[in-house]
Order: sequence, then structure tokens, then C-alpha cells
Amino acid sequence: MADEKPKTNITSIAPGKIRVKGYDIAELMGRKSFAEVVYLILKGELPTEAEGRMMDAILTSSIDHGITPPSSLAARIIMSGGNPLNAAVAGGILTIGESHGGAIEQCARYLQEYTGRDGEPGLVAKDLLRDLSLKKIRIPGFGHRLHNVDPRTVRLFRMADELRFSGKHQRLAKEVEAAFKKDGKDLPINVDGAIAAVISDMGFDWRLGKGFFIISRTVGLVAHAYEERIRQKPMRNFGVIEHEYDGPEAREL
Amino acid sequence: MADEKPKTNITSIAPGKIRVKGYDIAELMGRKSFAEVVYLILKGELPTEAEGRMMDAILTSSIDHGITPPSSLAARIIMSGGNPLNAAVAGGILTIGESHGGAIEQCARYLQEYTGRDGEPGLVAKDLLRDLSLKKIRIPGFGHRLHNVDPRTVRLFRMADELRFSGKHQRLAKEVEAAFKKDGKDLPINVDGAIAAVISDMGFDWRLGKGFFIISRTVGLVAHAYEERIRQKPMRNFGVIEHEYDGPEAREL
Amino acid sequence: MADEKPKTNITSIAPGKIRVKGYDIAELMGRKSFAEVVYLILKGELPTEAEGRMMDAILTSSIDHGITPPSSLAARIIMSGGNPLNAAVAGGILTIGESHGGAIEQCARYLQEYTGRDGEPGLVAKDLLRDLSLKKIRIPGFGHRLHNVDPRTVRLFRMADELRFSGKHQRLAKEVEAAFKKDGKDLPINVDGAIAAVISDMGFDWRLGKGFFIISRTVGLVAHAYEERIRQKPMRNFGVIEHEYDGPEAREL
Amino acid sequence: MADEKPKTNITSIAPGKIRVKGYDIAELMGRKSFAEVVYLILKGELPTEAEGRMMDAILTSSIDHGITPPSSLAARIIMSGGNPLNAAVAGGILTIGESHGGAIEQCARYLQEYTGRDGEPGLVAKDLLRDLSLKKIRIPGFGHRLHNVDPRTVRLFRMADELRFSGKHQRLAKEVEAAFKKDGKDLPINVDGAIAAVISDMGFDWRLGKGFFIISRTVGLVAHAYEERIRQKPMRNFGVIEHEYDGPEAREL
Repeated sequence: MADEKPKTNITSIAPGKIRVKGYDIAELMGRKSFAEVVYLILKGELPTEAEGRMMDAILTSSIDHGITPPSSLAARIIMSGGNPLNAAVAGGILTIGESHGGAIEQCARYLQEYTGRDGEPGLVAKDLLRDLSLKKIRIPGFGHRLHNVDPRTVRLFRMADELRFSGKHQRLAKEVEAAFKKDGKDLPINVDGAIAAVISDMGFDWRLGKGFFIISRTVGLVAHAYEERIRQKPMRNFGVIEHEYDGPEAREL
Repeated sequence: MADEKPKTNITSIAPGKIRVKGYDIAELMGRKSFAEVVYLILKGELPTEAEGRMMDAILTSSIDHGITPPSSLAARIIMSGGNPLNAAVAGGILTIGESHGGAIEQCARYLQEYTGRDGEPGLVAKDLLRDLSLKKIRIPGFGHRLHNVDPRTVRLFRMADELRFSGKHQRLAKEVEAAFKKDGKDLPINVDGAIAAVISDMGFDWRLGKGFFIISRTVGLVAHAYEERIRQKPMRNFGVIEHEYDGPEAREL
Repeated sequence: MADEKPKTNITSIAPGKIRVKGYDIAELMGRKSFAEVVYLILKGELPTEAEGRMMDAILTSSIDHGITPPSSLAARIIMSGGNPLNAAVAGGILTIGESHGGAIEQCARYLQEYTGRDGEPGLVAKDLLRDLSLKKIRIPGFGHRLHNVDPRTVRLFRMADELRFSGKHQRLAKEVEAAFKKDGKDLPINVDGAIAAVISDMGFDWRLGKGFFIISRTVGLVAHAYEERIRQKPMRNFGVIEHEYDGPEAREL
Repeated sequence: MADEKPKTNITSIAPGKIRVKGYDIAELMGRKSFAEVVYLILKGELPTEAEGRMMDAILTSSIDHGITPPSSLAARIIMSGGNPLNAAVAGGILTIGESHGGAIEQCARYLQEYTGRDGEPGLVAKDLLRDLSLKKIRIPGFGHRLHNVDPRTVRLFRMADELRFSGKHQRLAKEVEAAFKKDGKDLPINVDGAIAAVISDMGFDWRLGKGFFIISRTVGLVAHAYEERIRQKPMRNFGVIEHEYDGPEAREL
């Protein structure tokens, strides 16, 4: 038996009755959008209409990025090995680490820590960059290998502005971008950084940062695993035949 | 290099431009709900308003079922072992097999195969049950260990009715339930069966069945993994201390 | 609380005492080889010296196959995304499905089922191939994309011969190969098929077939994930940039 | 195409020839034990006889710890959900995080860092404990919830002594234990700490620490997943029905 009864504040279950954060799930169905219920389950309260729309946009922003990201690739490779859909999606989610999607969590953490400090946002941004520089950490959420201006970032910030969610975290993020520019570095806020700033201004704990990406990208992973299943042969070549062996030469026992 | 260039019809990527099924992702953000974009990516076209609302309800229906299902438990155990959020969620998704969530896929498969047959739905239902009985397969999507009347099933069918998605797959599913009842078996359509019937009537391939459950439940898994992290001690007892060892007695080498 | 106490016959635990299949683990350490203890835990009894040597050879045979198999690739992609070693190895193991490593399980299943039949091995082999042909199943464990003569197969069969483990399953497998040859098909027994035949002759349940591959290949996966970590940059290109998008053309909302 | 050809020094593959660290795999089979080939692949060179025996003991030490550890539990839950063996084992491996098995890696890291310092081992041990205390980190690899004297630890150290692998890392680990004792803390070196010290004295990189545990425990996970499949019903109760919901009370939309 467990040490003590574990506690949960998410969902209560009784025969014929399922309540998510106190609300009857059958009532939520049809009256609240999926994104609103995602907000409810992560935040504990139902969103305002504006919060709900922002949530829709955030979840849509990371829904897919094509066939090349590590997550799509891993999901396809697992499907190609002859496995069920859930194994493929799980493998895709496993790739979402510090260097892929994890930036949301880390960026939100820094933004939440440093906005707690006194001082002008511009000065706080400099403090943040100096502190990270001393630790030899590059701030996550800035720069993108492909998109110079990320259309998702632009859209998220414009919506946040219109819906009145532009707060101190977005301000700090923009000051960081400006500080980079002043130093001649072209490291614009990327979509991870934008999500980090917006969810921070909406009051979400940074520890949930990667969760937004996971919830969103799972949809793309289902689509890629499904496409692999219906359009490709099992065990196809994933393109890494060309490599170089530089280990020990042939030798005898 | 790969045998040939792999093809994908999901998302096209170019610097500064991401198009999901042809639509600019920045345009979708803020103008379409997340559930509508999920529909788009799985079906290839944007939903009507009614289809979008149905999608919201389906995705909400499986969002969480508390702390006890295998998926919640696995996600919490992995988090408890000191792992990142993505590993915990991936482990939760791994549990979603033939006996947990997989019923949607299998049930949708039977419904889609048998609605292709000629004859009265009542007779087709009998054929289906007889065929499965010969193969000693219990039809998935019927019966629930806890909920005698599942409120989610009732709600899904009522919405499908109001929104005019009640088609031949739901009819067949109800005939199966009726056939069970006539035989004195209390095996009502459960939420997996209801989703299977509704997505089949909406025109989704049964191979995507488990995908709906995965997309929906991932949200609950993020919530459980997060709650485990912030409310529980690492490596807590998950309640299986009491067990019986019935292997070989102590013996010497 | 659980319905009833679960039972296990693998390992008994008490303070200061761990017994695997009845043997004190501290006694096994240093007196039995790892492969012998693997045999013990999977079979329930310690192996003879010959069985132990065969086990060493089987586990060595699948330990690694370089950088290109799906399992190595998935493990490296996950490591590259910035994840811990266990997530990378888990992802590699997820690829080991019906089309990659899973052949051992399926091949062993057919060999174990058909050796139970009466008749000359040559005739049984024909029955097996005819039955599978009717079901449009290609027998797993035969043919290899790269190795025409697989050196591991040759070695396993020679050792099985010397150590007196050549039994009816290996005979049937060789008859299947011969039947293919007679039909002009070059489908030699591959390493999966050889392992399937040898473990069947050693008395292992076919349901453990994939387990041998998993135990063995996990070693290679640790090596690949580790090499990725220490020799490669995070988020490197895994070689699938070149692909073709053939979905809907750009369109407006 | 990839940025450049990736390099690997593990295994070279050519038609009919597989070489692990330069050695023909068919030659290794039957002439070297599995544990010796594990050593080869992780270290780059074949072990001496003593190193091979030590390797056998290390890999045997963590092979299984019964039905209760997070890894066994997760593997069984996934199997119980109706999934293939590889998914169950992968889920078990996912649990092996910082708080379960991960201690080997972290403990080996500290031992390798601090043995590089000048000074008496006893003083270095005090430095190490003081440094970790300042960072509020409890040193991993010491203390066990169940075994006061862990028989595996005793055995590993005795073998290391007999086989002449007792070096500075084991000395430092013992000084740490002694320092705890002097402070009235009963935190004996546990099996993770013992493995960490021994593999460090054998010259393995601490980054491989978790790898030893993964390779070893994978065997137990195969056994547990298999036992779950053949001895238990799908979707059985894993014993966490009793819990407390302490979230929002029932409320209306």
C-alpha cells in the first residue's frame, strides 16, 4: 500500500460523473472549446474569451513544422520499424528536449525570474545577458536556423497586443532582442521565445512551458506517423547511409 | 542518401513561411480554433462550423480520467524517477495500447468495414457479432468497468444528432448495443465506441482512431506529470509493495 | 488497493537479501557470467556450460549494426534534441517493431508451431510456406538487404552444431531456406531467423524472441547515444532536408 | 543531405562483414563472453580476464530488483495496456532518471572530479560533502530505503579488491561513507555508489554511468513485461485506486 493516499486536484471520477477542475466534462463538451479546456486543466480556471483565443493561437503555432524536425523524424522511423501509432508518437515526444522545444521552458524560467527584479526592463535585460554570459549559457528562445523573421512570432505578439496580454515578460524579451541587435547580433525572438513570453504574461508557471509545445506538436506527430504508415514502405532508408567509420582498423582476436 | 525523396502532404516550410495543408500558419492563428486546425491537419480540409464544434467535443471528451488510468500512472512514475516532462508524457502515451484507448481504432475499423455491407443495420450488427464471436474477439468500444451510463457517450451522441453527424456508423453501433441487450448482456457503447462511431460518420480513416485519444489525453498527461513534479516527492511508493513471490525457493549455487 | 496481490516468480526482495529465481544475487555475481544470469532469469534455471556459451554468442550477435539501423538513428536523434541517455535508449528500443528485430519473435512462433506437426521437415516447410503464402505473409527471418551470407548466421549454426543444440527448429528453418532456393528465390536465413531457430531449440518461448534482440541491442544503443553526445553538436541535421511536398497548393482562408 | 558525413567509431558494416571496434563479430561470438563484448563496445578495447569478470559482476548486480521499482512497474503497466514488448521495455527504461538508477552517473561524476584534486582522500571527501552541502545537493549513491547493508555493494567491493581494481575512486567513496558515519549519519554506499566507484576505477567516463544500469536492468524489464503478458489479465488494477481529490468543488459553467 502507498505511504499515504496520493492527492490530485485535476479530475474527480465517480460512476457516471467526471469532473475536470470541478466542471462536469459532459457540460464542457460542446460549450467550451478544446483550447479552453486545455487552459482550464493547466491553469485551474476557465479562460476569458480573450485568453481562450490566445490559447488557440499558441497551440496552433507549434502544431507542425514539416518532415525534418527531430520529432517528426523519430516518429516516422519508429512507425517504419513496424510499431503502433502510440509508440511512434511517444518516440517523437521523446526528442523534445533541451535543444528542441525545451527552449520554451528555459526561456520562460529566465523571463519569470528576471521580471521579478527591480529596474528598467532595458537594464534587467542587460543583467540577464551578462549573467548567462558568465555561465556560458546562450539564452534559449532567440534565433532560428531557418526563419529570419518568424511569422508565428509576429502573429503571437500582435494578438497578445490586441487582446491586452502584453506584459512585463514580453517587454523583457523584446529588450533582450534589442540588446542583441545593439551588439550587432541578429538573434530575433523565435517562436519558442514568443510562446515563453506570452504564457508568462498569462500567468503560467515556466515548468509547464514544454507542455504547451508537447500538446501542440503531438498533433503533427500523429499526422506524420499516419502518413508514414499509409504512404511509405516499412524499413525505408532514412538517409544516413553516407557516414564515415573512424574507429579501430580491422584487427584479429 | 535516401532511396528517393520522401513525400509529405502535411506542411510546407520555406524561410519565413509555414503552410499547413496550404494555409499560412500565421493566418490560421487567431482566425481558426486549435480544434479546427487539428481537423485540418488530419482531414486535409478545414471543417465547417458544425464539424469544428464536434471536434472540440471529441477532443474534450478524453482529455483526462483522473489519477488511476495506466497512462496517468506511467507518466507519474516516470516523472517520479527524476525525468523531464517529455519523457513522462511519452511513457504515458506508450500505455495507450489495444486495451487502453486502442478500442477507438479497432471499433472504428469494424464499423467502417461492416457499414460497407448490404442489409439492414440490425442484421449487419448480428453478422458482426457472430463473426467476432467465431474469432473469439470481444468487440472493442462497448462496456466500461466504472461508468454504467457514460456521460461522455450520451453527450457525444446528442451533439452528433443536433449537428447532423448521425450516420450509418452510429446506427450500426447502436444496433450492436441493442443486440447485446437482447442477449441479456449489459454492454453499453462506451466513450471509445462513441468516438469511433462519430469520427467514422465524419469521414475519418479508422487508422487515425487512436490518434484522437492520444491528442486529447496528452493534455491530461502533461497535467499529471506536472502535478507529480510540484506536489510529490521523487521515488514515492506507487502502491504495489504488497505482492506475492511464487518462484523457486531459496537455493544454493 | 489492487484486486488481489500480484504474483511474480522472478526476484524476491527482503532487507539485505535479493534472490533471482531463488539464487542469492551476491552469490551469482562473480561466479556466473552475465549471460548465464540472463539465461537464468528468462528460463528459470541456470544454463549448462554449453547453454551459457550459446547464450553469450546469441547476445553478442545483435549487439550493434552501426549507425544506420532505425534504432541507432532514433537514439541519436533523441540525444541530439537534448535529452538524457535513458530517453535516447528508450526511443531506440521503440523502433524494434515487426519490421526491425521483431522477426525473431514471429519466426520463432512459426517454427514452434510447425515443428509440432507430424511429417518430414521438408514437407512441413512446404506446408508452412504455402499457409503463409495464402495469408500473403512473407516468412520473417529470411533474406537481408545487405548481407548475402550473414556471418552471424553461419557462426550461430556452427556453434549450435558443436554444442549439440541443433534440433528440429533449425532443421525446419534450413528446409525453408532450401525450399526457397528450389523455387529460385535467394532468401537465406538471416540472423533473426538463426536466433529464432536456436532459441527455439534451446526451449525458449517465442514470446521472448524480441527480448533477446532488445537485451543485446540496448548495448549498441547506449554506445550510439553516448557517441552522439560526446562527438556531435546538438540538433544536427540528420539528412532528410531533401524531400518533396505534394500537399495542397498555397491557399487563402 | 547532412551538413557533413557523420562519423562513428563503433561498428563498421560491409556486405558479409561486421566489425565491432575492429573485431569481426563472428570471431567475437563464441570466443568472448557477452560481458566482454559490452566492455569492448563501451571502452574501445577488449578487457583483461579480470576486467571481464568484474564486468560480469557489475552487469549482474542490477539485473533485477523485483516487481516494485518504478521501472518494473512502468513496463508492466504498458504491457497491461496491450502493447508490444519493446514499448513496455522502453517505458521501463524511461523511468531510469535522476532518482532511479541515475545515481550511478552523478556519483561517478563527483568521484571523478574530486579524485583529480590534491590532498588526502579523507580531506577531499570532506571538501566534496561541504561543496554539495552548500549547493543543497545530497550526494547520490549513498543510503538505501530497504537494504541497510547492500549485499551487492559488499560483493562488488570484495571482487574489486581481489581482482585489483580498488583505486582512488573507491577510496574516496569509502571516505565519504566514513565522514557520514562520523557525523552520526547512517548513509552507507549503496549499489549505485559502488558501481560508480568501481567503473571509475576501471577508467569509464561518468557519462556512461547510467548506461551500465540500463544495460543490466533491461534484462529484468524483459522478464517483467513477459511475466505480465503471460500471467496477468490486460488492464488490471495497479493499486492506486485509493487517492484523494483535493481540487475545486463541483461547480456549474
